[in-house]
Amino acid sequence: MSVAQRSRSGGRAGRRAIRTAPDHTMLPGLRRTLPLCEPMDEEQIRKLDDASMAILEEVGIVFRDPIALADWKRAGAKVEGERVYLDRGLVRELISSIPSSFTYHARNPAKNVPLGGDRSIFVPMTGAPFLRDLDNERRNPTLADLAMFHKLSHMLPALHSSAHHIVEPYDHPISHRHLRITYSSIKHSDKTFMGMTTSPKNAEDVMEMCAILFGEDYLETHPVTTGNCNGNSPLVWDETMLGAMRAFSKRNQPVLCSPFVLGGANTPASVVPAVAQLNAEALSALAYTQVIRKGAPAIYGHYLSTVSMKSGAPMAGTPEISLMNFMIGQMARFYDVPWRTSGSLGGAKTFDAQAGYESAATLSAVIHSGANYIWHAAGWNEAGMHCSVAKFIVDAEQCAMAYRMAEGPRWDDFDEGLAAIRDVGPGGHYLGHPHTQENFQRAFFMPETFDNNSIEQWKAEGEVEITERALGIARKLLSEYQEPALDPAKNEALLDYVARREREIPAADALNQDY
Amino acid sequence: MSVAQRSRSGGRAGRRAIRTAPDHTMLPGLRRTLPLCEPMDEEQIRKLDDASMAILEEVGIVFRDPIALADWKRAGAKVEGERVYLDRGLVRELISSIPSSFTYHARNPAKNVPLGGDRSIFVPMTGAPFLRDLDNERRNPTLADLAMFHKLSHMLPALHSSAHHIVEPYDHPISHRHLRITYSSIKHSDKTFMGMTTSPKNAEDVMEMCAILFGEDYLETHPVTTGNCNGNSPLVWDETMLGAMRAFSKRNQPVLCSPFVLGGANTPASVVPAVAQLNAEALSALAYTQVIRKGAPAIYGHYLSTVSMKSGAPMAGTPEISLMNFMIGQMARFYDVPWRTSGSLGGAKTFDAQAGYESAATLSAVIHSGANYIWHAAGWNEAGMHCSVAKFIVDAEQCAMAYRMAEGPRWDDFDEGLAAIRDVGPGGHYLGHPHTQENFQRAFFMPETFDNNSIEQWKAEGEVEITERALGIARKLLSEYQEPALDPAKNEALLDYVARREREIPAADALNQDY
Repeated sequence: MSVAQRSRSGGRAGRRAIRTAPDHTMLPGLRRTLPLCEPMDEEQIRKLDDASMAILEEVGIVFRDPIALADWKRAGAKVEGERVYLDRGLVRELISSIPSSFTYHARNPAKNVPLGGDRSIFVPMTGAPFLRDLDNERRNPTLADLAMFHKLSHMLPALHSSAHHIVEPYDHPISHRHLRITYSSIKHSDKTFMGMTTSPKNAEDVMEMCAILFGEDYLETHPVTTGNCNGNSPLVWDETMLGAMRAFSKRNQPVLCSPFVLGGANTPASVVPAVAQLNAEALSALAYTQVIRKGAPAIYGHYLSTVSMKSGAPMAGTPEISLMNFMIGQMARFYDVPWRTSGSLGGAKTFDAQAGYESAATLSAVIHSGANYIWHAAGWNEAGMHCSVAKFIVDAEQCAMAYRMAEGPRWDDFDEGLAAIRDVGPGGHYLGHPHTQENFQRAFFMPETFDNNSIEQWKAEGEVEITERALGIARKLLSEYQEPALDPAKNEALLDYVARREREIPAADALNQDY
Repeated sequence: MSVAQRSRSGGRAGRRAIRTAPDHTMLPGLRRTLPLCEPMDEEQIRKLDDASMAILEEVGIVFRDPIALADWKRAGAKVEGERVYLDRGLVRELISSIPSSFTYHARNPAKNVPLGGDRSIFVPMTGAPFLRDLDNERRNPTLADLAMFHKLSHMLPALHSSAHHIVEPYDHPISHRHLRITYSSIKHSDKTFMGMTTSPKNAEDVMEMCAILFGEDYLETHPVTTGNCNGNSPLVWDETMLGAMRAFSKRNQPVLCSPFVLGGANTPASVVPAVAQLNAEALSALAYTQVIRKGAPAIYGHYLSTVSMKSGAPMAGTPEISLMNFMIGQMARFYDVPWRTSGSLGGAKTFDAQAGYESAATLSAVIHSGANYIWHAAGWNEAGMHCSVAKFIVDAEQCAMAYRMAEGPRWDDFDEGLAAIRDVGPGGHYLGHPHTQENFQRAFFMPETFDNNSIEQWKAEGEVEITERALGIARKLLSEYQEPALDPAKNEALLDYVARREREIPAADALNQDY
């Protein structure tokens, strides 16, 4: 067959194959062009900044950690007991060395993703003590369940990371889990991943495993993973988180500095003052990363919720969470640091309409707020108590839809589209027009997890609701999963490290305990 | 009991009563302060305007209606057959007399709502040939079902209108329905309502009934209802809609000029050119309202969807619909006319997570796009084929949440909130602080339709999912419904009018036919 023939006959068949074969290629790190929702003017930003700085100067913030207190003294802060008073000049000077953007390097360089400025990534949820599994049963997860989520993360195009403990592997001792989790993240996906911060020592183990995977020197100049450090709002950072932060920051690896906001319980019952507190908390931790190592990447973070008056539980998808996201985005940009939020939160017990409303409302606000590191972007339900396989699949598609929206309108075929209007004319239809046939798929997102058939068709197909439909997609994905190649020497070294550390760390009495 | 005693003891009890009694008071027409999402710069707006004007000038637009054609000739347009070529100068001059804002007058003046500029209202869905009822059964609706929806519209605070045929009353002949529908809208709610435009004569009947309710002269100077006129995209307006438009516009009552967009089927398969076409269509109808009557209020409208490649059905919640909303908002503001969109669309067959995602994604985009007349804001599912009672309740609460978000952050207790931070200090908690007790309810929206209890509590309460929960709320609302007083003379005159017209209009063979 000649080249011409091949390209002619094979061309159409090739295109058809491309159209029908499932495409698991990761979307590049999102570059947003959609303008952001910025409810504060310059003066209000300065007012909020001033309020947060005054909190740090006059109320102070507690670092429950002797090393951090000593570090702060050396850095010139006033320290009284565990309370650190931070002068705004010192805070501003410290945070000025945080890179405003950087690139995450994955073990597959095709999966590298830029972060900061107009660049954003979607990262799955983590930390669920339960899952709703492939049969929609709610139960404690195992390491195999975690591997399943890592495989799905690897395959879903809009997810840019395999994260870490998406679900807690209850079949392994707590003290060994961080090793198994990190290995699973690395082994089952070649995207970037998160690093456990459950203790300073665990964080050191993660750094060692990263050094094995990427090389010690490479880490010095390339962000490859992310640690999360939660604050104890109001205005407390604890030893565990600060120790883990040091493990990451001293190796030049990014941490999320995340005040943990239960609006009304550990913040004032008012949106703007709550942001003032959260902002003070985030700034103090961001500043501390630069005390640990000047120039280390760090991310302005937070977990945001408002609490239910009935149950005290964190709620999702409420208007105040959206407003706080918009404002925090403005503050992070004011300080010129990348920032993190949570993408698709739900408080429902099942994957019902509540979960849909909550997740879409949250994700939409996140996109309009311009968040860079969009964590908990897939699977989160029941206020984080379980990760749902079905929701994971749908959320990941929602991220792809949000991605498309955030890219903004495309003008590249404007003239061709206008020409089609002239061709078709009044009362005509477009489905047969060449411009339509050329552009339809590119032009309009077709959600795979949504059913848009007629009710008759839907009934004929067995009245499948979205949970079942999404679980079917998950099963199909897993049946098609291909493990990404990992250098056998590195794989062996990682396994050796895990085995050695499991021998060193006592596992006794730790099995099936929660933390 | 002295006044002092009453106010002291009764004061606290009174406040408690206010807190626990269900509050059905309508929220005032929304005043938005949240900045809008405007993806086009000045040049792009002008480019789109130019493209739409060129379509009207060079492609022309079909008015399938002899009266409109004659009107256009008189107005100076070039008319060839049914095709009207509109010069941009003529279009601009005509639309310049459309009021940029006005107030809807309800029969209860406390329910008047401003529209246009930064003022928006939420209006329930209409036109569903099926409902999912109080038992979640899908069936054809009756007039009693319609009355139920009008009662719920009356009671749900964020809904600003009782609309018209929320569901189609199949137990009445088609030819009489518009009379019964209009009477039901008026009788069961004292909010503003919509007027049927199913034929020019039906629209005249609505106008007559409005004249009975408000007085003939009052209509001349007060918008009291809204007619919807759909276009037949691409680029066609038909006789039915144009005749109904004349009935409304000549009485100075507002119409929605609504191109009906099935993106990719009756528009180019590309977002920006699709908006260029839609914009041309809307402009031509807006201009025609001013040919009918200079200065008559009119609303830039549209129904927006993209179509499924699998079924051809309209989809909801897709990124392109959001982008089109953002752009249309900019165009409407460029022309300085109020505009309409659709608020809470869903394509799911049941009230499942799909419906939740779709509705929340749509509503969010609508808020960020700054739409004024937010129609189909409650109940819409199955691509408009059914109105769900459960979804109606949840959507109405979502509107209340969107309302709160659109109001933007409140700064009025900023100093008190900051003082609370100082009082509570590091490691404290806020629940007992006076500022919290004073502000909690006002500060944070507590969705009634969402369950935020623990799984244990949820199980103990019978594992109730959102559909059942919402239907329970609907039943409770209906049990508390109190019909708003209607002047008995006006009521009798309306009933007389309905009875007379039902005698005049032949009902034969029309029962249970759809249109």
